[in-house]
Amino acid sequence: MWQSPSMSYEPPMSNDEFRRAGHEMIDWIADYWETVETRPVLSQVAPGDLRAALPASPPSTGEAWSEIMSDVDELIMPGITHWQSPNFFAYFPANASPPSVLGELMSAGLGVQGMLWATSPACTELETHMMDWMVDLCGLPDRFRSSGSGGGVIQDSASSGALVAILAARERTAGQYRWDELVAYTSEHAHSSMLKGCRIAGLMEDQVRLIQSDENFAMDAAALREAMQNDIVEGRRPFFVQATAGTTSSTAFDPIEEIADICKDFVAWLHVDGAFAGSAAVAPEFRFVNDGLDRVDSYTFNPHKWLLTNFDCSLFYVADRQPMIAALSVLPEYLRNAATDAGSVVDYRDWQVPLGRRFRALKLWFVIRTHGAEGLANFVRSHVEMAKDFDAKIAAHPQYEVVAPTALSLVTFRHIGGDADNERIRDAINHGGEAYITHTKLNDQVVLRLAIGAVRTEQRHIDAVYSLLAALA
Amino acid sequence: MWQSPSMSYEPPMSNDEFRRAGHEMIDWIADYWETVETRPVLSQVAPGDLRAALPASPPSTGEAWSEIMSDVDELIMPGITHWQSPNFFAYFPANASPPSVLGELMSAGLGVQGMLWATSPACTELETHMMDWMVDLCGLPDRFRSSGSGGGVIQDSASSGALVAILAARERTAGQYRWDELVAYTSEHAHSSMLKGCRIAGLMEDQVRLIQSDENFAMDAAALREAMQNDIVEGRRPFFVQATAGTTSSTAFDPIEEIADICKDFVAWLHVDGAFAGSAAVAPEFRFVNDGLDRVDSYTFNPHKWLLTNFDCSLFYVADRQPMIAALSVLPEYLRNAATDAGSVVDYRDWQVPLGRRFRALKLWFVIRTHGAEGLANFVRSHVEMAKDFDAKIAAHPQYEVVAPTALSLVTFRHIGGDADNERIRDAINHGGEAYITHTKLNDQVVLRLAIGAVRTEQRHIDAVYSLLAALA
Repeated sequence: MWQSPSMSYEPPMSNDEFRRAGHEMIDWIADYWETVETRPVLSQVAPGDLRAALPASPPSTGEAWSEIMSDVDELIMPGITHWQSPNFFAYFPANASPPSVLGELMSAGLGVQGMLWATSPACTELETHMMDWMVDLCGLPDRFRSSGSGGGVIQDSASSGALVAILAARERTAGQYRWDELVAYTSEHAHSSMLKGCRIAGLMEDQVRLIQSDENFAMDAAALREAMQNDIVEGRRPFFVQATAGTTSSTAFDPIEEIADICKDFVAWLHVDGAFAGSAAVAPEFRFVNDGLDRVDSYTFNPHKWLLTNFDCSLFYVADRQPMIAALSVLPEYLRNAATDAGSVVDYRDWQVPLGRRFRALKLWFVIRTHGAEGLANFVRSHVEMAKDFDAKIAAHPQYEVVAPTALSLVTFRHIGGDADNERIRDAINHGGEAYITHTKLNDQVVLRLAIGAVRTEQRHIDAVYSLLAALA
Repeated sequence: MWQSPSMSYEPPMSNDEFRRAGHEMIDWIADYWETVETRPVLSQVAPGDLRAALPASPPSTGEAWSEIMSDVDELIMPGITHWQSPNFFAYFPANASPPSVLGELMSAGLGVQGMLWATSPACTELETHMMDWMVDLCGLPDRFRSSGSGGGVIQDSASSGALVAILAARERTAGQYRWDELVAYTSEHAHSSMLKGCRIAGLMEDQVRLIQSDENFAMDAAALREAMQNDIVEGRRPFFVQATAGTTSSTAFDPIEEIADICKDFVAWLHVDGAFAGSAAVAPEFRFVNDGLDRVDSYTFNPHKWLLTNFDCSLFYVADRQPMIAALSVLPEYLRNAATDAGSVVDYRDWQVPLGRRFRALKLWFVIRTHGAEGLANFVRSHVEMAKDFDAKIAAHPQYEVVAPTALSLVTFRHIGGDADNERIRDAINHGGEAYITHTKLNDQVVLRLAIGAVRTEQRHIDAVYSLLAALA
């Protein structure tokens, strides 16, 4: 069929041009990593700065690649907060290591959809295999292995894992209770995503209880039991408890064993959020982070935080996959295929909210194979060592105090002068650009957090931020 | 502080090694794209093949990069279904173009989190800007621009967009109705993700109505009005309608204008799913896909299907962002910051289910700038041309018939012999490896789908698949 010249598609970037621009991009990234230490960690731009510098309308014809890269350097980079800087100590880290970035690149190049086994068998099978390898690497309970009734899947985030857990728990009570009778529980220090997940799943504010915590910011199990008992008395149905292994504010560990006893008594689903701390289990001496997991229904932790694998890579395990699949499976005709019909394969679309999914197992495979178990263990060990060192120095400083136990690589501390002093110190560090730290509140006081875990952080970076803090005291 | 040699972390891949392995990976991808046409499109492996070939346990020490790449070639590649093959005509396409892959790579290398404006201002501002550019490029209504009460965000998928729309609609009725009184509506040909979204949001099966469609598989608006009226009479509250601009089975277009009239009368939220077809609007002559969008509450379409941008990149627009933010915002202390407190910025965490998010706007920016508006328009035009040609040939063939109108680049057709013949033809093509097509059911009959839209598909690939079909007739 004849096509007019104006209607034909000419790819603006040929394969050869892709090779050239791709090699440049790899070098651009390597250069970035080598120099990121010298950039102000927190972006110093004002709201609207980038938008004001961009053309209001898209171009009508294609532009040269060199112009685009030049705009990246001049317009985009000042607006970047450098999560890959060794001086990034805010929130929790977001690891992007060289092998994981190559896995993300290969995944993009292959461009496969892993919604069904049939739509790329390797995408599904490598993921199942990596989830089993991670059981080995972290010493997780056998109930999470794919060979039994459970199994694991890569989600985009611990938020989505919590939501899937809530939906599976809700499904398990379906038919026996009205959903407006259901009640969920977590600690006052749990991550906000649990509240968001409950809200998404249709629970009202009065169907979620925030249980008080003890002096170390861990959930008070006796208070949990009492709250659940009260709800039973008032005709409600406790159906879901989320415990945390390493809270966001202070890496406090809820008493999972005791909570599991309670959940057994009330037949409630127990989900554990180990988003940050879970990765520590690659080092056998830190496997206290797994305490009690052999008795929970679901568990999540994020290699995209502290295990060298770039976002998104959040691991979600269940002990029994059936309620989850029952909650999430909808099979229209256009997705039917012989392998699915035969029931001989895993279709991960039934393990998550979206239908489509990238080949995320590749980057985890690359990270595990390049490092090996010992390399991964040494990675988390190095950060815990630095944190113990920083903790000791802060404890010894007359104007600072450590606020919560330093279980792993997050140190929570404060200037004894009060909230205003702590906010002043935080802002001075962040606006100076030498480092980036964030705050939280514990016991109603502003507390500073030094979260160690970036891929390129070394002892000298900790020494430098300590010197800054000492000078600002 | 002294560290024992066994505790120190030695990155297994230095920056220089990353440069070498990265250049290799770029060439590996370019080689793949150049040869993908020669590979069997649908993977021919059996369930368990890959897992059987992988070591049962992870390595204890790191392995060489060359071994990993060798395993990719030997173990992974046979298990890949080649979505980037020019002979991929299954489902809908999943475009991965060279500039978009470079955008994904840069995003992975920067490794920033875009959950808040403050956590990388450029990540948020470029995204807002690209969502506005796409309003221009597609001729979308002004109500979706960020300058008014609405705006846009990149989601991972149209499934997640539908869920967010349902949650915003539910929020808009909050306080006025009990959630178990709410009823949602869509057509029997809507995507399964709408049912999944309703279920996630806590609606029971009897709170969702599948409205019948007309002879062209578009929603019957009169039947919708009647169903909503019946529900009102029975004391329920119609709150949400999802219409489709280009259904999955046949790219049928629901009558959005009429449906908007009905939604206005019943004060129901109107969401439009244009996942595949929406991208066609980059060519002005196809802007019928936008008909009625100036009267809807939310709209989604996926550049990761048919606009050269690799998964995930699903655009979600709302006319009024407030109910969505009210539904999804939870602000704990550890996420508070000056810019958020001042209300002067967009924090996209409140526009989606997860908290974390990648810098996905980069790849869209690269695609738009390398192509320009004309290049993008020619891309979709080329596929529509090919589909019209294929449609004409099928219509002229004595053993085949076209089943639904070919509105854009999906052709639905069948062998007149019946279901068994169509399944035989589908399987013969797919198992032969020369092309990959999938089926659906329309009017209870098995129908074959030829979805044209892969980045490298040319007229000769359509000619070849037509010859195959003719030989199998």
